[in-house]
Amino acid sequence: MAKVTIWNEYLHELKDEEVKAVYPEGIHVALAEGLKQDGREIGTATLAEPEHGLTQEVLDQTDVLIWWGHMGHDQVEDEIVNRVHQRVLDGMGLIVLHSGHCAKIFNKLMGTQTCRLKWREAGEKERLWVVDPTHPITEGISEYIELEQEEMYGEHFDVPTPDELIFISWFTGGEVFRSGLTYKRGKGKIFYFRPGHETYPTYYNKEVLKVISNAIEWAKPLEARELIYGNTEPLEKL
Amino acid sequence: MAKVTIWNEYLHELKDEEVKAVYPEGIHVALAEGLKQDGREIGTATLAEPEHGLTQEVLDQTDVLIWWGHMGHDQVEDEIVNRVHQRVLDGMGLIVLHSGHCAKIFNKLMGTQTCRLKWREAGEKERLWVVDPTHPITEGISEYIELEQEEMYGEHFDVPTPDELIFISWFTGGEVFRSGLTYKRGKGKIFYFRPGHETYPTYYNKEVLKVISNAIEWAKPLEARELIYGNTEPLEKL
Amino acid sequence: MAKVTIWNEYLHELKDEEVKAVYPEGIHVALAEGLKQDGREIGTATLAEPEHGLTQEVLDQTDVLIWWGHMGHDQVEDEIVNRVHQRVLDGMGLIVLHSGHCAKIFNKLMGTQTCRLKWREAGEKERLWVVDPTHPITEGISEYIELEQEEMYGEHFDVPTPDELIFISWFTGGEVFRSGLTYKRGKGKIFYFRPGHETYPTYYNKEVLKVISNAIEWAKPLEARELIYGNTEPLEKL
Amino acid sequence: MAKVTIWNEYLHELKDEEVKAVYPEGIHVALAEGLKQDGREIGTATLAEPEHGLTQEVLDQTDVLIWWGHMGHDQVEDEIVNRVHQRVLDGMGLIVLHSGHCAKIFNKLMGTQTCRLKWREAGEKERLWVVDPTHPITEGISEYIELEQEEMYGEHFDVPTPDELIFISWFTGGEVFRSGLTYKRGKGKIFYFRPGHETYPTYYNKEVLKVISNAIEWAKPLEARELIYGNTEPLEKL
Repeated sequence: MAKVTIWNEYLHELKDEEVKAVYPEGIHVALAEGLKQDGREIGTATLAEPEHGLTQEVLDQTDVLIWWGHMGHDQVEDEIVNRVHQRVLDGMGLIVLHSGHCAKIFNKLMGTQTCRLKWREAGEKERLWVVDPTHPITEGISEYIELEQEEMYGEHFDVPTPDELIFISWFTGGEVFRSGLTYKRGKGKIFYFRPGHETYPTYYNKEVLKVISNAIEWAKPLEARELIYGNTEPLEKL
Repeated sequence: MAKVTIWNEYLHELKDEEVKAVYPEGIHVALAEGLKQDGREIGTATLAEPEHGLTQEVLDQTDVLIWWGHMGHDQVEDEIVNRVHQRVLDGMGLIVLHSGHCAKIFNKLMGTQTCRLKWREAGEKERLWVVDPTHPITEGISEYIELEQEEMYGEHFDVPTPDELIFISWFTGGEVFRSGLTYKRGKGKIFYFRPGHETYPTYYNKEVLKVISNAIEWAKPLEARELIYGNTEPLEKL
Repeated sequence: MAKVTIWNEYLHELKDEEVKAVYPEGIHVALAEGLKQDGREIGTATLAEPEHGLTQEVLDQTDVLIWWGHMGHDQVEDEIVNRVHQRVLDGMGLIVLHSGHCAKIFNKLMGTQTCRLKWREAGEKERLWVVDPTHPITEGISEYIELEQEEMYGEHFDVPTPDELIFISWFTGGEVFRSGLTYKRGKGKIFYFRPGHETYPTYYNKEVLKVISNAIEWAKPLEARELIYGNTEPLEKL
Repeated sequence: MAKVTIWNEYLHELKDEEVKAVYPEGIHVALAEGLKQDGREIGTATLAEPEHGLTQEVLDQTDVLIWWGHMGHDQVEDEIVNRVHQRVLDGMGLIVLHSGHCAKIFNKLMGTQTCRLKWREAGEKERLWVVDPTHPITEGISEYIELEQEEMYGEHFDVPTPDELIFISWFTGGEVFRSGLTYKRGKGKIFYFRPGHETYPTYYNKEVLKVISNAIEWAKPLEARELIYGNTEPLEKL
């Protein structure tokens, strides 16, 4: 099983009583608890730690990095962003959750203003429909996941065309959203998964955890292989 | 027809007699000559000009920007790169030629180390096979384009999975390359087209010019439309 | 502009007063009226005509074929289906509307049981969101198209992964649907567009007509070009 | 591990001494030998068997079906083709090898004339380049697979745009070919893999076997899940 590091900015949970009530030890701890399985090693890292907890050593030992951020995006050091970026290109999987769509690392990997989408905090219902039932990320999920209360994200979502579209969300207020997207960058696989506003208990939902758990195993690197770049001799006689 | 700006770093042609012999007034002028058609406005811009010739005004008047660079990538100011990036997201088409794969703007749009590929300057043959004969960029091209002498680029090419793969190159030395690729970023369309080493008369080739001309019309923006982002009221009663 | 043939089974409108009230001369005539523009030639064809109006001559003169069928799918002769199929592979564009998802020709081109989706006739609201604002099929459409009353189609829709996903529908009843899809088969381009139940005046809606009109110009064939298949001599010395 | 059935028409090996010398017990037996691993159950089936060895019972017990055919495509009963087709839509993986591109089942799943490509039997070299190093089907493969002698297949290959392009072949004679392609149809995953002409020992090549073995595990079905189609009640109040 994959070695996982869960990165959470861990700011809302310390400042906001409403959030603390839902995630008393932080979203990262709730996720770690929900994702632990026999043989899966899970570490956590937060913004306040030295190097945001993402030292080269930690990243080198990480198969899949999970990212949750929101109010602290700007506080993430560019050097760390570049380090994570390089590790993704070298094969580390990356799972970007919810408001991580605005994170520097996601912007950098996508090449667009991924921050651009519609949003609304009104506690409305979200229903995530599976549109690719062949995908291992959907294993064990029935036709849809229903979340009684979530923040709304609506189209247009300014991301590149995904390699694979796995979930589409329906919201009570009349919007839709591409909620489960895969990308490849270098040797790394990336999964964006929409739900998880800090004021709702979304990361205790068994099906949400199942999706993230599936995504971890999907995103983990292949066995190491070196790709050769640069000036090269011909393989055939010229 | 689209309003086009051709950007060329214009360095090799001034310094290297071999290149000057092929493109005496620069690659940008050769391209402008080859791409002019009734009603198509073409301007040029080069590295040495103030703001590299890419002022906000110039870009705002440009439907499609063509980019050729090689030895001067690092000399392109980040501010100009960001300006071009924003214009692409807002709808300007971008055609990246040959060694432009290493340009800051292409890296930024792709999110990978697009500089990574195999290469060899040996004057070998390149044959670009059409693999998507439905695509308007291939209009008027027979089954393949043959170039007697070109620089080799070989896989693996470290770009995201393209939205569309249009050409695949065969090289004498035994390599293949994905040579015609489309992407979308924001409201902008992007076409990467491989051929065009500075020491060969590739940009006088009628079929190469036809492809670039087709790509210009494919990449030009749709009529202006504003996309709405941010906090938004529900369309339905909650 | 493209030469268009609109095929409609033309059964509901003759048998059902409710439908006749909406489309007194048939859906094909309403569409022809709505899609006529200077220089666009539009013909119609129906199930009851000899060869369903789709003679080889008619098809050979057709750049883009529009298909509306529902209760008469089984009455379409296999020979005619095969003829249309061959023309698509040879470059004719095909626009499949609404319940045409169940048509023999769409099944044959897709390779799946395209008939499989959820549906409900309850006159609920449909809102089609643009998710690919770079696509020419969306030109002139704002962020979404709203239809006060439509039949619901819901996921999972058993089609191959589309080449391009352009619209996603939201329905009052809680479902979503991939409503605007493109495919390529042989040299032909295909667009599936969801709305258009026979009891609602959907094909008088200006934005729906704009989408179909855009799709016609997008789907028309490139200039004729022969692709070479079969046993072939080497281009290089073996 | 997946339960595999290898289908081979098994005609060349019985009639042609040259082929018999390479595959004395048939391609299916050579593949079965090469693909066996601890815990992987492998069966075989051939054209001459009743129901071509593909009874409903056999198919129901098959996770992944491998298909090799060439001169006997027309002898495959439509009823069996339809049975295999249904099983793919219901989740069985399918790996189509080499001249299986012309098989009825591949045509039916693709919706195009997949028989159309260029070919040449000249024993030239094929080099299959990995272009998607993130894909599990490429695990354990270095940058390319080299086959000293193979039949040439050249573009244009008349298949739908693949969901994923994994290998591109270079041939001595000057052609290229999209050699490793994935598709999804219904709940089933499909992998087309080019090499394997009957007169060459391709299916003894360790890397070729590794790719097929990887593809088996990639293509096996997810745990059973029923998708709901047809008339459906609203999930929300209308």
